[in-house]
Amino acid sequence: MAKSALHLARMSYQPKMPASLRGAVKVVEGAATESVSDREEIAAFFPHTYGLPLVSFLPGSEMKEYPAANVGVILSGGQAPGGHNVIAGLFDEMKALNAESRLFGFLMGPEGLIEHKYRELTAEVIDEYRNTGGFDMIGSGRTKLDKPEQFEAGLEILRELEIKALVIIGGDDSNTNACILAEYYASIGAGIQVIGCPKTIDGDLKNAQIEASFGFDTAAKVYSELIGNIQRDCNSARKYWHFIKLMGRSASHITLECALQTHPNICIISEEVEANNYFLDDVVTYIAETVVRRSEAGMDFGTVLIPEGLIEFLPAMRRLIKELNEFLSQNDAEFKLIKRSAQRVYITNKLSEENAALYRSLPADVAQQLIADRDPHGNVQVSLIATEKLLADMTAQKLAEWTEEGRFHGKFSTLTHFFGYEGRCAMPSNFDADYCYCLGRAAAILIAAGKTGYMASVKNLADPISEWAAGGVPMTMMMNMERRSGKEKPVIRKALVEMEGEPYRALREMRREWALSTEYVYPGPIQFFGPEAVSDSPTITLQLERTGR
Amino acid sequence: MAKSALHLARMSYQPKMPASLRGAVKVVEGAATESVSDREEIAAFFPHTYGLPLVSFLPGSEMKEYPAANVGVILSGGQAPGGHNVIAGLFDEMKALNAESRLFGFLMGPEGLIEHKYRELTAEVIDEYRNTGGFDMIGSGRTKLDKPEQFEAGLEILRELEIKALVIIGGDDSNTNACILAEYYASIGAGIQVIGCPKTIDGDLKNAQIEASFGFDTAAKVYSELIGNIQRDCNSARKYWHFIKLMGRSASHITLECALQTHPNICIISEEVEANNYFLDDVVTYIAETVVRRSEAGMDFGTVLIPEGLIEFLPAMRRLIKELNEFLSQNDAEFKLIKRSAQRVYITNKLSEENAALYRSLPADVAQQLIADRDPHGNVQVSLIATEKLLADMTAQKLAEWTEEGRFHGKFSTLTHFFGYEGRCAMPSNFDADYCYCLGRAAAILIAAGKTGYMASVKNLADPISEWAAGGVPMTMMMNMERRSGKEKPVIRKALVEMEGEPYRALREMRREWALSTEYVYPGPIQFFGPEAVSDSPTITLQLERTGR
Repeated sequence: MAKSALHLARMSYQPKMPASLRGAVKVVEGAATESVSDREEIAAFFPHTYGLPLVSFLPGSEMKEYPAANVGVILSGGQAPGGHNVIAGLFDEMKALNAESRLFGFLMGPEGLIEHKYRELTAEVIDEYRNTGGFDMIGSGRTKLDKPEQFEAGLEILRELEIKALVIIGGDDSNTNACILAEYYASIGAGIQVIGCPKTIDGDLKNAQIEASFGFDTAAKVYSELIGNIQRDCNSARKYWHFIKLMGRSASHITLECALQTHPNICIISEEVEANNYFLDDVVTYIAETVVRRSEAGMDFGTVLIPEGLIEFLPAMRRLIKELNEFLSQNDAEFKLIKRSAQRVYITNKLSEENAALYRSLPADVAQQLIADRDPHGNVQVSLIATEKLLADMTAQKLAEWTEEGRFHGKFSTLTHFFGYEGRCAMPSNFDADYCYCLGRAAAILIAAGKTGYMASVKNLADPISEWAAGGVPMTMMMNMERRSGKEKPVIRKALVEMEGEPYRALREMRREWALSTEYVYPGPIQFFGPEAVSDSPTITLQLERTGR
Repeated sequence: MAKSALHLARMSYQPKMPASLRGAVKVVEGAATESVSDREEIAAFFPHTYGLPLVSFLPGSEMKEYPAANVGVILSGGQAPGGHNVIAGLFDEMKALNAESRLFGFLMGPEGLIEHKYRELTAEVIDEYRNTGGFDMIGSGRTKLDKPEQFEAGLEILRELEIKALVIIGGDDSNTNACILAEYYASIGAGIQVIGCPKTIDGDLKNAQIEASFGFDTAAKVYSELIGNIQRDCNSARKYWHFIKLMGRSASHITLECALQTHPNICIISEEVEANNYFLDDVVTYIAETVVRRSEAGMDFGTVLIPEGLIEFLPAMRRLIKELNEFLSQNDAEFKLIKRSAQRVYITNKLSEENAALYRSLPADVAQQLIADRDPHGNVQVSLIATEKLLADMTAQKLAEWTEEGRFHGKFSTLTHFFGYEGRCAMPSNFDADYCYCLGRAAAILIAAGKTGYMASVKNLADPISEWAAGGVPMTMMMNMERRSGKEKPVIRKALVEMEGEPYRALREMRREWALSTEYVYPGPIQFFGPEAVSDSPTITLQLERTGR
């Protein structure tokens, strides 16, 4: 395979580690833990894996002998930079503990376990993927691993390969399922340990124990590079408003971090929109008012950052989508007979008065998107809605009205962007390369220590790496009960942007100035070499959250 | 202004230069030159600036005394990484030749000259912008500077500021106009020199004398970073075809360079489409056939690179657009009365049979785009057409037919991207930072040597910087006669991708393998530090063109 010069240079990068992960390790157990809430229910769901102690690693005095052990690994869900380094760290630590140990990768996500598709990950394979982006070493997939039949099918291949532990690298849902699997295998005495690893660029898998999910650092930096470049263009051409939507699912962590890195004129935070019960028109008015004020100061240009999940956080839109979903799933056959050009009027007549009014106010293409391209359950696919275009068009509409009323005298031209796939498989930053490698090594140590139902953890991430503290967190500790598909279920709590958190407070303090001045910051591309401040700084979110602790 | 860590680190970067630009310089004149064609006509248009000798700079033995001179500088047209460094190089060399010299920047492009808007560029201003992207130091604009009234309006402010030379940093059109301005000022004995600098990310301002326009290196590397990231995602998720459109106006240089850097499965080159007289359906069939073959090999995923200008290179589309333009500009009043939903049918009935058939075959949104959003002259705005979506949709349509016919059994899901604004204002790569700085210094030396009608030049760009050869090229030398707005005019010849050139040949040799294998290359982000192969390599285009010489 042809490799770029940087790819070749990165292959020999040796991830940095704290002392506790180099050489002999002492595994120290803390006090028993409790789940973040709903303790009785969670304990009832997880009789074998509830209440386990926190585990931390300290530098040990002597290398212990460990028996050889075969381990399986799965990449689950969306790609995040650094996944390959988790596997490399896992491999290296396994081999350091016993050179006879073997690592197997299940292919294309949990499906590989269920369907017995795997490859052995030898040193040759691992070396080809060190410090690279992507999940292509073994692929990933979105199959939900949550049914006993699947667990049993998996058990067959685990037994065949004499695998004693499974490492599942995934987001909150995948780790919830990893915990359910750990509990299941413990309950039947299968002798298979399950260890999770916190992955997701969305940054929504974090809590008192897990400071960050891996991939967030790199993805946010790639998007910030692009936003910075666009802002420099914006400030040079001085004639466009750029509406930039950013991946990140429900939570606005990515958008918030990018705003802190680049100082855009406007940054929408979904959680704030929901907390204030804003209507779509409130958001549009907020943008339009800033456009007017900048225009009055001679600046008919600017930037707006928009989180991917915004639509679902607008209570009125949520009500509309709910009614659309219900109506369309119940009247699918009839709806399919309606000509495309007549669909909008048809739907409008079927909706309740409030929702019909909102639906009527939407631009044609968004209105169409809301009723087309539904998922197999008949649900609207919110992530496909071009929110950036929706907001740009609605702002233009409002400003046209204000122009007629004499409230706006400027020009308003827009360009829209959506960044997501550009960052999910980027080469991991030094931070993510180091963090992931440490997570992998931690996972191997948890396995050697006989743990199951744990997530590998590395703390003090905003401090120098020498201060990083590795260990394991019982996954039940992060759980609460939530309603999913009409049932109360134990799940790892998703972290949304906190209105009282330091990152959001920093944004709120500065955004008034950002709106009216043009104080753009240009982060530039991720650097792997050069001064440490350039190549090794963690996200601003991590730095601010440390301040807040 | 808040600055990122990388921004701060880059401020102290000292661009590299060949020996001939450091210290004393000897200006050597070659033989008289001729234009690339239409010599008599060009000579007649430029009696004072035609036939000038090529100029090259050699290390000199003693520093000459130069009188202080005021100089003006203009950024013209679209942004390109490195513009600020041209100005920094110009400033530093002017000051080295005489510390009393002063530099003035005209604001927002040629308009600043005409409307007498300028700022003095002192060391304080210059230092704030060294090695940064964007044109925000003085802004840029697209006003065409080509009328005697404008030249006279400019002369007023040039005289007022006692400016003896004007440096115009722009693309082929801006430099053509710079030459016309040089000729005009020479013809009236105004005593004002005009020097051009080759700028454009599109890479279409190059010829036997000018090896590359600045900005091409950085922009192509930013886009290649993103394409590489998307390809890694594509190869991990293994379920999408990504259709990626790239800026670059008419020429496909950017797309070609990005393909050479990233090895996509499919790369469309506009010049090839035109040379083979392809129809839109030929391009779609070519894509669809590759999709089928990859699918048969188990790969329902891939990448397609598409040059921004493609539509205009499809002879059939060009005929359609021409008829649309003519019809709509002549029937604007009547057309405006047609309801939007009835426009398509209305237009189809007005077109000739061949064009009506093609128009009818286009997806609804593209058909709509072709008649909406016209420019002030009533012309279709081709650059606004979402070619990436057009090709994705039409390929899907064809594959749906082939599925019915039993010729295709795979899945085909698409995602589309357009990269342009992400790269025009990126921080200049070391190559562009060095090249631009050298161009600026060369411009200052040409001014000191009393030259006018020259473009600053640096050659041997694919060699180590010690081998770079700086000098000046008479702009008339690059000219030929072309039909513009119905008249024969002298213009700098635009360089399209050559079917016999090494870069295109390299693509043609490798693309069959790229189509069926998945041999993606992942260039990663531009590096400013680290091994030279990583931080300082020129584009593959430059390297291959050197081989071809």
